[in-house]
Amino acid sequence: MKLRDLGEFALIERIERAASRSRAVGRTRSLVVGIGDDAAVLRPPAGEDWVVTTDAHVEGVHFRWRTQSARCVGRRALVANLSDLAAMGARPLGFVFALAAPPDLEIRTFDGLLAGLLEEADAHGCPLIGGNLSRARQTSVVISAQGSVKRGRALLRGAARPGDRIFVTGTLGGAALEVARAAAGRGRVRGVPTPRLKAGRALARMAGLGACIDISDGLLADLDHVLDRSGCSAELDLASVPRPPRFEAACRRLGVDPIRLATRGGEDYELLFTLRGRGRSAGRGAAGPAQAALSRRLGVAVTEIGKVIKRAARRQKTTGWRHF
Amino acid sequence: MKLRDLGEFALIERIERAASRSRAVGRTRSLVVGIGDDAAVLRPPAGEDWVVTTDAHVEGVHFRWRTQSARCVGRRALVANLSDLAAMGARPLGFVFALAAPPDLEIRTFDGLLAGLLEEADAHGCPLIGGNLSRARQTSVVISAQGSVKRGRALLRGAARPGDRIFVTGTLGGAALEVARAAAGRGRVRGVPTPRLKAGRALARMAGLGACIDISDGLLADLDHVLDRSGCSAELDLASVPRPPRFEAACRRLGVDPIRLATRGGEDYELLFTLRGRGRSAGRGAAGPAQAALSRRLGVAVTEIGKVIKRAARRQKTTGWRHF
Repeated sequence: MKLRDLGEFALIERIERAASRSRAVGRTRSLVVGIGDDAAVLRPPAGEDWVVTTDAHVEGVHFRWRTQSARCVGRRALVANLSDLAAMGARPLGFVFALAAPPDLEIRTFDGLLAGLLEEADAHGCPLIGGNLSRARQTSVVISAQGSVKRGRALLRGAARPGDRIFVTGTLGGAALEVARAAAGRGRVRGVPTPRLKAGRALARMAGLGACIDISDGLLADLDHVLDRSGCSAELDLASVPRPPRFEAACRRLGVDPIRLATRGGEDYELLFTLRGRGRSAGRGAAGPAQAALSRRLGVAVTEIGKVIKRAARRQKTTGWRHF
Repeated sequence: MKLRDLGEFALIERIERAASRSRAVGRTRSLVVGIGDDAAVLRPPAGEDWVVTTDAHVEGVHFRWRTQSARCVGRRALVANLSDLAAMGARPLGFVFALAAPPDLEIRTFDGLLAGLLEEADAHGCPLIGGNLSRARQTSVVISAQGSVKRGRALLRGAARPGDRIFVTGTLGGAALEVARAAAGRGRVRGVPTPRLKAGRALARMAGLGACIDISDGLLADLDHVLDRSGCSAELDLASVPRPPRFEAACRRLGVDPIRLATRGGEDYELLFTLRGRGRSAGRGAAGPAQAALSRRLGVAVTEIGKVIKRAARRQKTTGWRHF
């Protein structure tokens, strides 16, 4: 059965029914009006700023049906948005999604997408609160996620300062490796990154925090965004960039460069953040114990990979994925 | 010059520059972080609920480059979202937009879209606060608009009650006539509806208000949404549905049915709302003066077109535009 066989209003009812059954809707205290009105209404806790992001997933560009299940596409589409909220230190409150798709899209693909969205929605307490359906020649999922953060505590890209130590959460390169593997015809894209919401919220409460960004375009490209906004440069120890277990061997088998994948591969959705240095004595050697304590506090392993320095006269620019 | 000649980051800079110059950004007091971070941050007045909507405009479905300028497409894309905020009684605070487009889209088309978006943004004090760019085979503009309304005062579709009088703002059928004219090769689509933001806010402050919706799918289809949510039926005086000047003659020349266009044509973005009736004596004949006072209060002509009645055992369903 195809989308056109069910019709628009039946599809909307299907979404509304699925969303209303989701745990995220049942548990939230911030949702006043959900799907089914002209707009959704949220009531965040008093004294909070509102955080808004949007992110698109287009078939043939961000995903391919051949190498990825609809459920996985749905999960990753929401994760990309939740990761932006994490990078601001925000708590998710809800999301709207606009689906454009050909009328001959299979209903089971639609159902898979929806199931994937709601699975992540439930996992992170971010209810589906509204959306839009449209015909199109190419499938695309555009999400806008809403969150809130304590007033004035949002984490910014432009807050790095010379002397800051640079950290990343988790490991980098795993998502790019999986894409390279699928492109080589050796398996499908199955992994769904964890948006670092808990870590982001912990960072928003921390003293001495500098800048924060999520790594969606690749470590070097996203670090560049931080440095551009902060007017700084950085020294990185590329060898210290944390990679997944057995990463080098897997890269070797595929004939791809592990350092390249870990530093330029996108979609790992880890956080990069900077912390004010503690005087001149806080060299990298002394960072060991602090790093372990920090990992406990953020609920995820963190690794120090370099430091922010004064803006160099000429800084090498690195680029991640470009759409145009 | 095409999008691909400029590149993604130059395009983002272009958007950021244009947005930062816009009056809407200069005048808002609610914008804490705009374009350029992982997400935007808004700080609405205390005691307000947060209203969120999303709406898509897809090339070949919602608009055609052949019959509509890029600027007009941009304006209408934002208006559709602002109209949703109006229908909730909300004040706009900002919007994010996700543009998907082929790499060979002309830069002047991109600039036209952006100019149209910012023109409406300025007209209604709704700054562009973030977005997303993506490659795609087909151009689409997906907007999510944010607004706020006094806590608990959002206007709802499900609040109509038997005995309510039904009103619409402005006139209906004009947008559908223009589309029919363009489809017949007699001119381009130029009109841009006015989102009824002021009227919506006035309605949100009014005692005795019932339901409210914006007319995007067509009068009958959108009234059906209200009746469905409210568990009611309605009696309409179709002849009283307000139409633009010289509408009948223009319809005759095109060979289209004026009543059909005025009751089933979409995209006029007027508001339909209901008011509690004032006892049995408040027949339609007595409504004249109240209607004039109401028009003054809302800042736009309003017309009473019928009344809400108890749910009929079998109600004829009407349909507007369907995507699938």
